[in-house]
Amino acid sequence: MSILLAGEFDAAERAHWLGLLRAALPDETLVTEPTDADSIDIAIVANPPAGVLQGLPKLRLIQSLWAGVDRLLADTSIPPEVPLARMVDPAMNEAMAETALWAVLSLQRDFVDYAAQQRERRWQQHPQRRADEVQVAVLGLGQMGRAVVRRLDANGYRVAGWSTREGRLDELLAASDIVVNLLPLTPITRGLFDSRRLAAMRRGACLVNLARGAHVVEADLLAALDAGQLRHAVLDVFHSEPLPADHPFWSHPRVTVLPHVAAQTDARSAAALAAANVKRWRTGEAVANLVDRARGY
Amino acid sequence: MSILLAGEFDAAERAHWLGLLRAALPDETLVTEPTDADSIDIAIVANPPAGVLQGLPKLRLIQSLWAGVDRLLADTSIPPEVPLARMVDPAMNEAMAETALWAVLSLQRDFVDYAAQQRERRWQQHPQRRADEVQVAVLGLGQMGRAVVRRLDANGYRVAGWSTREGRLDELLAASDIVVNLLPLTPITRGLFDSRRLAAMRRGACLVNLARGAHVVEADLLAALDAGQLRHAVLDVFHSEPLPADHPFWSHPRVTVLPHVAAQTDARSAAALAAANVKRWRTGEAVANLVDRARGY
Repeated sequence: MSILLAGEFDAAERAHWLGLLRAALPDETLVTEPTDADSIDIAIVANPPAGVLQGLPKLRLIQSLWAGVDRLLADTSIPPEVPLARMVDPAMNEAMAETALWAVLSLQRDFVDYAAQQRERRWQQHPQRRADEVQVAVLGLGQMGRAVVRRLDANGYRVAGWSTREGRLDELLAASDIVVNLLPLTPITRGLFDSRRLAAMRRGACLVNLARGAHVVEADLLAALDAGQLRHAVLDVFHSEPLPADHPFWSHPRVTVLPHVAAQTDARSAAALAAANVKRWRTGEAVANLVDRARGY
Repeated sequence: MSILLAGEFDAAERAHWLGLLRAALPDETLVTEPTDADSIDIAIVANPPAGVLQGLPKLRLIQSLWAGVDRLLADTSIPPEVPLARMVDPAMNEAMAETALWAVLSLQRDFVDYAAQQRERRWQQHPQRRADEVQVAVLGLGQMGRAVVRRLDANGYRVAGWSTREGRLDELLAASDIVVNLLPLTPITRGLFDSRRLAAMRRGACLVNLARGAHVVEADLLAALDAGQLRHAVLDVFHSEPLPADHPFWSHPRVTVLPHVAAQTDARSAAALAAANVKRWRTGEAVANLVDRARGY
C-alpha cells in the first residue's frame, strides 16, 4: 500500500515535503498522484484541491499537515467515514503564543499608537498601563489557546479563557480589554464577531484575530473601529487571502495587518509528527489528534 | 527642617507629585522654592535645573525621582559630598522588561517588516524563527537589566548579560542577533555604539537602545543601517529629546522610534519609594539605592 501526498503546493514545496516525509518514513511508498487508486490507504494532505481524495476505495486515514481543518471538512467529496487527523505541533503552539503576546504588548503599551506617531513625526507619551491592569480574553481552549493562556499568564496579564462549550460569551466580552480569537472555524463560530457581538465588547477594547478570517464580519468590524467602539484590531487572517490590495484594512489607522504568519507550520516538525501518526496507524496504535467531524475540530 | 521638591515639572505635574509626597510624608514640610535655604536638609528631585541645589548649606540627602542620574551627576553645582539616591522601582523594571520583550519579539518574528509591508499593501510571509534560535545580549546588569534578562529567558530566548565590569564586549556583540542596551550613561559608556562597535556586531543584527541617546553615535548608526550592517534599530532615547521633527530617524525604514516610554515612572509608586527612603534617613537607617558618583550610577 502507498501514501498519497496532496496539497496546494508549488513544485519546490512539494519536493521539500516529499523529501522530509520519505526520510521520516523510509519503509513507505509515497506518491503525489493517485495513478494506482487501489494502492492508496493513507493520504497526507495540506488543503488538497476539492475532489482529490475521491475514488480512493482503500483510503483508511487522512493526516493533515495543517492545524486548521475547516477547508477539509467543507469538502463534501471526502468520505466522511475515513478518520481524519489534524496537525498539533508544540512548536506551532509556541509560535502562536509569541504572536498573541506581541499583539497584547503592542496594545497594552500603546506601541501601535507610537508607530502611527512615528509616521507623523509626533513625540507624545501616553500613560503607561501595567500588565495586571489589562484583562485579556482568550477564545478557544485547544492546544493553541491553552499555550496562549499560559504565556499571557506568565507575563502578568489577567487572563480568562473561553470555549464554545461554555455559555455567557457576552459577559466575558464586556469585561475584557483585549479579546484574542483562537477558535476553530465551525458552523457555530462562523461570523461570531458581527455587529451585535462587537457592540457587546467593552468600549475601546481591542480584537486580535489569529484564527480564521470568517470568524469576523469584516464590514461590521470596520464600522465598530470607525465608531470608536473598538480601539484597534490586530488581524492575521481574512475572508480572502492574500488580502486584496484595495481592501480598506491595509490603510486603516486602527488595523494591524499580518499576512497569515501568526504560527507558520515548521515543515521539519510537521513531517515528523505526521510520520509518527502514520506509524501508529500501521502498528495498530491509536492515532493522535483525530478530528470530531460533528464538532468541526 | 523641610524638603525641597525640585524638577522639570509643569504646574500640574508639580501639584501631582507634591500631593503624593505630602500624603506619603504627613509629618514633613515640603516646599517647591528654597526661600528659606537654611531649613532644607533633603531635596527630592527630577532633573532639576542646573544650580537649583546650590546654596543649601544644610542639604544632607538628595533623592531622585528618576532612575537615570546622568544629568544630576553632570551638574557640577551639586555638592559632591551629599549622598544621592536614585529611584529603583520594581514596577519600572517590569515595564522595561515588557518593552525589551516587545522589541525582541518584533525583531525575531519580523513584525517590523510586516508593518512596512502593510504600508505597501504587500502580502509576503517570511521564514519563522524560534525564540531559542535567537541570541540576545543584554548590556547593563542593574535591576532593570536583570529584569530584562529574566523576562527574555522565561520567554525562551538565548540570553547573555554583560556589564562594564566584564571585558570582551566585541566577542559578545559578534555572537548576538539582538543587542539590548540598558547601560547607565557614564564617561565609559558614552558613545559606546560608534562605527567601530557597530562593525563588531554580527552582520544583519539589531540594536535596541532603551538606556540613553548618548550611548549611540547617531550618524554612525544611520551609516550602519544604510550599509545593511544592522538590520533594524528600536530606539527609545535620543541625543536630543523630543526628537527633532527633521531628524532622519523618524522616516528611516529600519528604525522604530519610541518617544522615551520604555519605562515611565509611576508617580504613585515612585512617591511611595522616595518617601520610604526619606523616612529611613530620618530614623538613621541605611538609605537605599545610593549612587556611587565615581562609578556614575
